[in-house]
Amino acid sequence: MKLFLDCIPCVIRQGLDSVRRVTKDETVHEQVLRQLLHVVSEVDFRQSPPVMSSQIHRLIREITGECDPYREMKDQSNSLALQLYPNLKSRVERSAYPLETAVRLAIAGNSIDVAVKSHFGKTDVHEAVENALTAPFDGDMGRLSDAVARADSILYLADNAGEIVFDRLLLEQLPLDKVTVGVRGAPALNDATMEDARTAGITDLVEVIDNGSDVPGTILEECSESFRGRFNESDIIIAKGQGNYETLSEVEKDIFFMLKVKCPLIARDIGCEVGSLVLRRSNQVATEAREGGQFARI
Amino acid sequence: MKLFLDCIPCVIRQGLDSVRRVTKDETVHEQVLRQLLHVVSEVDFRQSPPVMSSQIHRLIREITGECDPYREMKDQSNSLALQLYPNLKSRVERSAYPLETAVRLAIAGNSIDVAVKSHFGKTDVHEAVENALTAPFDGDMGRLSDAVARADSILYLADNAGEIVFDRLLLEQLPLDKVTVGVRGAPALNDATMEDARTAGITDLVEVIDNGSDVPGTILEECSESFRGRFNESDIIIAKGQGNYETLSEVEKDIFFMLKVKCPLIARDIGCEVGSLVLRRSNQVATEAREGGQFARI
Repeated sequence: MKLFLDCIPCVIRQGLDSVRRVTKDETVHEQVLRQLLHVVSEVDFRQSPPVMSSQIHRLIREITGECDPYREMKDQSNSLALQLYPNLKSRVERSAYPLETAVRLAIAGNSIDVAVKSHFGKTDVHEAVENALTAPFDGDMGRLSDAVARADSILYLADNAGEIVFDRLLLEQLPLDKVTVGVRGAPALNDATMEDARTAGITDLVEVIDNGSDVPGTILEECSESFRGRFNESDIIIAKGQGNYETLSEVEKDIFFMLKVKCPLIARDIGCEVGSLVLRRSNQVATEAREGGQFARI
Repeated sequence: MKLFLDCIPCVIRQGLDSVRRVTKDETVHEQVLRQLLHVVSEVDFRQSPPVMSSQIHRLIREITGECDPYREMKDQSNSLALQLYPNLKSRVERSAYPLETAVRLAIAGNSIDVAVKSHFGKTDVHEAVENALTAPFDGDMGRLSDAVARADSILYLADNAGEIVFDRLLLEQLPLDKVTVGVRGAPALNDATMEDARTAGITDLVEVIDNGSDVPGTILEECSESFRGRFNESDIIIAKGQGNYETLSEVEKDIFFMLKVKCPLIARDIGCEVGSLVLRRSNQVATEAREGGQFARI
């Protein structure tokens, strides 16, 4: 998905949020903001939003010397999600449709997204969970289920810290011997890295690889060769969150996107309302197959 | 109220919205956005948000040659509000508390604000009206009523086009021979100018003066001498909307602010939630009087 001019103010807002996490010094906030405005006034607007976001965050790292502004917030998100995990796991186990319940919860986890809202508390998470579990489901889970059953290799691309604990619920419903999980190769906003996969207990379940990149999405050209290889070899990809959608929506591959839509431009691109919980198979495959109804919206 | 760094992305978003109203040419949008970013990276961050906003809109006028990007939108807002006017007027007349009903409606009119939301339709206005009329009223209208009764001269500062038709409902409840209405001296976002006061029928009711300035608020130093004189001589000021609050909240004068709070920073400054409908007497007077409870929130 390309960058819209509307993304610019949003990306600058994110940059301001990041630098505030590094220091309380308002002089530094102002200095960084001025530099951001200057840099963004000259950058290439044809790249995708996550690429611009990563450029901005590299700049913040350079100015402040802090390589992971969201570490504390990521730890808190993981810790909060791990407290909820046992209860959520038993809800999946008790469900008449465990895969669907797990998909709903994995998408609920995508609500824990600092890129959109700077503060996210326990009440918000509970609300996100109840909403995801009870929202009307007008889509078709069958295609995901079929594709999973047919696949010999599944690459599951995680999105945020905290959310990755919710991903574990879904991973446990998949054939674990066929699944690899991909995380970011370096800090990128509050996105999950290897450390978060470990904290969430995912490394004990399946192989986890990092993508070698610090973009809050998956720009294949910026990923390591080994990650690209694994991406290409996998039969299907499950890609969580907006960042992965923005960077992979035009890649020719059988991808199931799962996300909570928080941005009006992504909503327009997908053809849904802001706030929707979406399970979507990639366009390319949908266009080829044209069986209709390959779009499941929760 | 001073500018916060959070205002910067918002002001840039507004600038983008304005240029899109002038032309559909995306090359111009990008060109203006780049220039805005560059200019804002170097401006004085100690000014109030409306002053920065006016600088940006001067720049847009210079680049595009269009002096009133919101003219069409203002006409639509006026026209929509005028359609509603007869019904609203009869609601005021039928009310057991006409002044309170008119205040509520005047604040409802402040919801028609393109600075916050780019598209505002009939349904939204109906919703704003019903909300303002039925929301619990935990404040005290008495002080406004007393101050109006005691005043020999009242200066009523309008905010937006469209909204100014709703202001007429409140003006009709005031002693018209003592009231002067102030509008902006030149186009400033969707703020009301003399043309809108005429369209709303206000010029037939009371004297209307323009403030000689193109700031979407009231920076007294930027207003004409005659306007400043009138401001200083008036016993009380009724100031509508966020822009007037941001620019007058620290001015020593007996001011009644009426606004719908749309911005989290203004909400923090006032001490209320975003979305609140607020009637607030200025701090200075409140501090001197200290009778408590001079803050009425609808």
